[in-house]
Amino acid sequence: MLREAAAEFLGTFILIVFGVGVVAQKVLSADANGSYLGINLGWGLGVMLGVYAAAGVTGAHINPAVTVALAVRRGFPWAKVPAYAAAQTAGAFAASAVVFLTYREAFDAFDGGVRLVQGDLATAGIFATYPQPFLSLAGGLVDQVVGTALLLIGVLAISDQRNAGPPAWLAAPLIGLLVVAIGVAFGFNAGYAINPARDFGPRLFTAVAGWGRGVFTAGHGWWWVPIAGPLIGAVLGTWVYDVGVGQALTSKADVRS
Amino acid sequence: MLREAAAEFLGTFILIVFGVGVVAQKVLSADANGSYLGINLGWGLGVMLGVYAAAGVTGAHINPAVTVALAVRRGFPWAKVPAYAAAQTAGAFAASAVVFLTYREAFDAFDGGVRLVQGDLATAGIFATYPQPFLSLAGGLVDQVVGTALLLIGVLAISDQRNAGPPAWLAAPLIGLLVVAIGVAFGFNAGYAINPARDFGPRLFTAVAGWGRGVFTAGHGWWWVPIAGPLIGAVLGTWVYDVGVGQALTSKADVRS
Amino acid sequence: MLREAAAEFLGTFILIVFGVGVVAQKVLSADANGSYLGINLGWGLGVMLGVYAAAGVTGAHINPAVTVALAVRRGFPWAKVPAYAAAQTAGAFAASAVVFLTYREAFDAFDGGVRLVQGDLATAGIFATYPQPFLSLAGGLVDQVVGTALLLIGVLAISDQRNAGPPAWLAAPLIGLLVVAIGVAFGFNAGYAINPARDFGPRLFTAVAGWGRGVFTAGHGWWWVPIAGPLIGAVLGTWVYDVGVGQALTSKADVRS
Amino acid sequence: MLREAAAEFLGTFILIVFGVGVVAQKVLSADANGSYLGINLGWGLGVMLGVYAAAGVTGAHINPAVTVALAVRRGFPWAKVPAYAAAQTAGAFAASAVVFLTYREAFDAFDGGVRLVQGDLATAGIFATYPQPFLSLAGGLVDQVVGTALLLIGVLAISDQRNAGPPAWLAAPLIGLLVVAIGVAFGFNAGYAINPARDFGPRLFTAVAGWGRGVFTAGHGWWWVPIAGPLIGAVLGTWVYDVGVGQALTSKADVRS
Repeated sequence: MLREAAAEFLGTFILIVFGVGVVAQKVLSADANGSYLGINLGWGLGVMLGVYAAAGVTGAHINPAVTVALAVRRGFPWAKVPAYAAAQTAGAFAASAVVFLTYREAFDAFDGGVRLVQGDLATAGIFATYPQPFLSLAGGLVDQVVGTALLLIGVLAISDQRNAGPPAWLAAPLIGLLVVAIGVAFGFNAGYAINPARDFGPRLFTAVAGWGRGVFTAGHGWWWVPIAGPLIGAVLGTWVYDVGVGQALTSKADVRS
Repeated sequence: MLREAAAEFLGTFILIVFGVGVVAQKVLSADANGSYLGINLGWGLGVMLGVYAAAGVTGAHINPAVTVALAVRRGFPWAKVPAYAAAQTAGAFAASAVVFLTYREAFDAFDGGVRLVQGDLATAGIFATYPQPFLSLAGGLVDQVVGTALLLIGVLAISDQRNAGPPAWLAAPLIGLLVVAIGVAFGFNAGYAINPARDFGPRLFTAVAGWGRGVFTAGHGWWWVPIAGPLIGAVLGTWVYDVGVGQALTSKADVRS
Repeated sequence: MLREAAAEFLGTFILIVFGVGVVAQKVLSADANGSYLGINLGWGLGVMLGVYAAAGVTGAHINPAVTVALAVRRGFPWAKVPAYAAAQTAGAFAASAVVFLTYREAFDAFDGGVRLVQGDLATAGIFATYPQPFLSLAGGLVDQVVGTALLLIGVLAISDQRNAGPPAWLAAPLIGLLVVAIGVAFGFNAGYAINPARDFGPRLFTAVAGWGRGVFTAGHGWWWVPIAGPLIGAVLGTWVYDVGVGQALTSKADVRS
Repeated sequence: MLREAAAEFLGTFILIVFGVGVVAQKVLSADANGSYLGINLGWGLGVMLGVYAAAGVTGAHINPAVTVALAVRRGFPWAKVPAYAAAQTAGAFAASAVVFLTYREAFDAFDGGVRLVQGDLATAGIFATYPQPFLSLAGGLVDQVVGTALLLIGVLAISDQRNAGPPAWLAAPLIGLLVVAIGVAFGFNAGYAINPARDFGPRLFTAVAGWGRGVFTAGHGWWWVPIAGPLIGAVLGTWVYDVGVGQALTSKADVRS
């Protein structure tokens, strides 16, 4: 069990160290060494590498919403859910610290040492997601539910052994591309967290590392939306996949046997 | 049969939710969170994911032009064509609704709640394709015939078991890349619909969701071109592939057996 | 033999229809629907798709320099070289015609119907390569020799069965990526033709389709450099690969048997 | 042994010829034919192609830090380390010479024949890395340790046969993507050398080819940081991987046998 937690910690660490790192590079370089498409690719690559790191031990959830959806609809033991979620969040926290450490001098050069949550020199958005000004909390919840539902539909389509997916060793880059797809299509509203650990771990880091309580009050208290939305969306997406194609594949398998 | 329709519905839904989503993100963010290359990648990824979702049940046509070409030249049962085309179009319609729902507040922030087909604040082009001002209907027909012929030549080259293509589980990302290729090379005239369901489903959605009849009258009544052109082009492309390499592969196979 | 020529024709047709198409889209849209990186990707995808189309019949040379290098150092029959080179060049010519036909109205909108080889409204560079002003013919020859040598080293590293390369069905996308690499690194001097058919077929098309003799006189009579350079470079690259790793692999194989 | 050195020479040559080539193209074209994302892709593709070239003979280290980490923690013979490192550095030097030769006229057009280490017309950064003005040597050391540790964690996750990685023939493009990930996320501080041969070989070339001693004194004597940092980081990354998931995989394997 400790070893599973260690693998989820390392897998999520890798996801976040690249994901937060790519946003840090774009923001701190004032877009000279980054672009929005680069951010999409960076998160996709982080997913790919995080999955490869943890897959041999746990199958690589690296996302509490995935862990919960597998518990609700695939029989993953509920008893393991808290430890998985804690390890994932801790891995995301630790990765945020490593990115901050690596770019500490770049942060100081960018903001003069004053860590801000909002404004032109804000850097809190490097770590956690914040909504567009026009987005209501309800609209944000829809955004996170849709994004995470699409994540789960895609993950299941790619990894369902009854479907026409690839060998298990190719799932990692394809799930990475799935996250690129969500990023280029559903990132505008609120930065496509679609993963409670990806958002809460780095947000907690900013709260204790100098950005202060504003990271929880910003966006009308936005912080809980990228936790609740993904949990709902992941279960919904699993259900949509099962109704849309899962049942047809099951009955095909039944006919064969 | 219902299950095949459900799979084609879900596969085309996924294609369009990412494809229309990526255009929505670029337009509504005023290019801050998108680019033309990002659009090309988004459609390619949508194809890849839609194919993975439906492949285990139907082989994943997710395009009425593909369904018709397989009926004309590969013995796919004509009796199934209407149900496939209807499911594909309905999936594209539903995906348009989901994108609109997810970005509803962003639409209002962009156009103040007035849905337009033409002009700087137009958003109809997020959903369906519209031609460049210089393009005649005849020129548009050529464009759609050529684009869809290339689509079918590529699909057949990748998936023809007699040729040197990859295992079936790798076809999805390669066909996604094929659509990226068509997008970077043949998207300028009229947005590379190359799929009647991809264009007509979302266009119908805009007609009923607030953009009005202009979506059918714009571009000198452009709407039928991305339906007729792909149907012709898909059959033509299949024929070109068969003449160019298919026959050589058949006679090689004959020699072997 | 006719079938091999047909496959090389179709494979090179696909390479050029996407490669010339992507440049056409960038130039004619005044960079709105294209970018330099998009051009690099378009050529890479064209290579991938052209290889998949022809691989089952001929192994997919789609480049006279590859054909000649295989004749010089791998025992490909010299008697077939002229037919292969002719089919490749004809495929490139036909693809240029299809791109021109598809974008005819866009050409007229861009240049008012006057086809130019040089200047802001020049469109000859859509089809064939032209050198930078600073490049001498000798420097261009070095450029083409180096680029094509790297092409062959890469092709051999990927497809040499004694080395650690992938299964044959994965060679096509990897060779496509190799051409992307050459494009992002060695395209600045003169547009990385690295393929006599890729350059001469489209150049011939422009000569007869309205651009006139200037396509042969421009760049101090540049046209022969992307023919001679690749032929030399391909043989050189094959030799470098054989000396660098090929011999070690051969002796390893000898030890095993 | 000579054959292993030749393979490491050729593999590193290919890595650097594309990596340095892509920076040369961006700088010398004043960004017309390149971009930061293009640079990231170019280095990733260089890694992929270099690995494919050398993998059949040596397993393709093409990086002295990898060679040393394998000696420290995987039993690679220390006696071979100096020859590997020398061959890698020599390959990087030779590749720099080939890039310079290919772009010689472009260099002259860009800087008028005066090779500079600093300033708007500087071209030394095409070959070796130089730190941002805000970066201290200590901060640079952290940067190189973190980047190279991530490189090794990723390489091991992808190639560890006990984990859920791909077949060996797919490692090359995935390690290329890993380097893209490091480039988009950890390239801002100091250009992500993460490879002593990649930095020192090209730096030595500039020292002797006209840029002079400034390439060693610039950045407060920066040159040794991309040598020392990667050596430390590679060993650290190997240790982190072993603690995080390697031990869990070992005990799983023990249970099975």
